[in-house]
Amino acid sequence: MDETSTVGIIGSGSWATAIAKMLLNNVPTINWYFRNPIHITEFKKKKHNPNYLSSVMFETENIFFSDDINEIVKRSDIIILAVPSAFIKSALSDLTEPLKDKFIVSAIKGLVPEENLIIGQYLHKFYDLPTESIGVISGPCHAEEVALERLSYLTIACQNIKLARKFASILDCSYIMTSVTDDIYGTEYAAVLKNIMAVASGICHGLGYGDNFQAVLISNGIQEIKRFVDTVHPITRDIKSSAYLGDLLVTAYSQFSRNRMFGTMVGKGYSVKYAQMEMLMIAEGYYAVKSIKEINDKYKVNMPITEAVYNIIYEKISPAIEIHLLTEHLR
Amino acid sequence: MDETSTVGIIGSGSWATAIAKMLLNNVPTINWYFRNPIHITEFKKKKHNPNYLSSVMFETENIFFSDDINEIVKRSDIIILAVPSAFIKSALSDLTEPLKDKFIVSAIKGLVPEENLIIGQYLHKFYDLPTESIGVISGPCHAEEVALERLSYLTIACQNIKLARKFASILDCSYIMTSVTDDIYGTEYAAVLKNIMAVASGICHGLGYGDNFQAVLISNGIQEIKRFVDTVHPITRDIKSSAYLGDLLVTAYSQFSRNRMFGTMVGKGYSVKYAQMEMLMIAEGYYAVKSIKEINDKYKVNMPITEAVYNIIYEKISPAIEIHLLTEHLR
Repeated sequence: MDETSTVGIIGSGSWATAIAKMLLNNVPTINWYFRNPIHITEFKKKKHNPNYLSSVMFETENIFFSDDINEIVKRSDIIILAVPSAFIKSALSDLTEPLKDKFIVSAIKGLVPEENLIIGQYLHKFYDLPTESIGVISGPCHAEEVALERLSYLTIACQNIKLARKFASILDCSYIMTSVTDDIYGTEYAAVLKNIMAVASGICHGLGYGDNFQAVLISNGIQEIKRFVDTVHPITRDIKSSAYLGDLLVTAYSQFSRNRMFGTMVGKGYSVKYAQMEMLMIAEGYYAVKSIKEINDKYKVNMPITEAVYNIIYEKISPAIEIHLLTEHLR
Repeated sequence: MDETSTVGIIGSGSWATAIAKMLLNNVPTINWYFRNPIHITEFKKKKHNPNYLSSVMFETENIFFSDDINEIVKRSDIIILAVPSAFIKSALSDLTEPLKDKFIVSAIKGLVPEENLIIGQYLHKFYDLPTESIGVISGPCHAEEVALERLSYLTIACQNIKLARKFASILDCSYIMTSVTDDIYGTEYAAVLKNIMAVASGICHGLGYGDNFQAVLISNGIQEIKRFVDTVHPITRDIKSSAYLGDLLVTAYSQFSRNRMFGTMVGKGYSVKYAQMEMLMIAEGYYAVKSIKEINDKYKVNMPITEAVYNIIYEKISPAIEIHLLTEHLR
């Protein structure tokens, strides 16, 4: 990776769009994969993403768009994956270009469904990618605030800290400050778990629990996240850092959080199906809770909040009953 | 302390009123000191506190009111101090009754001005109170939500855990869950520091910083609190517990927080004096930041957020400039 490295983005949602905006402060051109060619045509005409963060204008002559993922991968040294986790397998299914000489960065905050692997593990296992070539972009960062150029902090994880720093330097700009860590497992798992906590937070909000309770829930939430990541990948990490606690806070407390909104609807009594239809967006926590529950069958970490969300969403236990039971486990 | 112990409350604000409400679920009568006899007359007539949490109705025949603090102290085995820290010295100035055989509980989230002592230290030093006879009621708990009977968790601190448990049992009720700790210093200091963080949070909000930044600020805030309390009173504690992190969250994120509101006005450009007048309520953080800054002259803990708030409030540095400098210290 050096100054002449070209960057490609896989994905066309709000987070992908926010990352494109950051990158174009530092690199002259980017490559950008959209699944749907009609959206590329519209983007070029309107000079903004037709579906997400439409207030962000782009100089489209600096963007090479393609609906051919192989074309984007071939042209790029660094590839940023920014599709919902539920679509990662299908997004990569047409890929014939090898990934193993690229630097691949996960901006996905979810696990690969069925495989129950974080993105880094999945790439390592199925695409022969050395662990050193895997990076993670971690928040706390809502795309909507990047669009508004509100000061945000990102943590870039890579086991090769030099590469993390190099990649971070192409995101840094007047409204983005970056730091680095070697904890690719912890940052990815924490990003997944915080979505479950945000769903829990929403459910409790929907049921009428107040701010006092939310503070207890989130305090117990970060403890639950620490127990899990320290078990699954035991290294020294400060869970109070922005990449872990901050990411949880922005998701659980923010008005922009899809996971919290999804939870709120479930807490208010809407069915899971209806809440998903109504939102038109994927709440990652919906998938995450199932995967984490299955992974934890092996580790047996004490995870009362995750259990409660799982029981409400997949076992159809009444939110009121399940959360009432949960309150006995919190301190 | 036993089932026949009588409880007295010193203070007539919203937190005092919330505590009175909790107590009267478990004890038949309480003693309650109001400085102003007119407010006692009004309370008896209206059956609620005329000035705070007026939706909470009381059976006033179960309350012995007095504007004579000695009368209240004499009649009570347990005394709960719930006045703003700025008034604690004057509230106790008329006291001639000895405190040393009583169990004294601080529900004050501030330091004794000029002395720069937490309430426990002050009582120990000036009222000969053994450390074992000092308790602390710690949040996360906004009085306004207690009024609404929304489920809230309290932590009771006392170096004698048995006494902590006994006292906790007279607060426990359908909407209050308690736990205990022996960390009277840590819970008091954390309760003080979180008000400074909430002022900082408000200032940043007033300046237009968004949710992404708030998450980073609060993550750095709890790290700053940990550094300080671990230095001043080095024992093993989990700063992610409700009594520390939860208390910070409810204050920094809640609409009910006076400290955050005060900070928001300052961030928006109102003078400190105007903000205080407009609010008609004491923002504890205003006093806390001065005391903590002075205490920290000795310990020299790295406290960039506290420094920034101090500079804005007491050194009249522009909030925009000071917070911009702070952003360089956060991670």
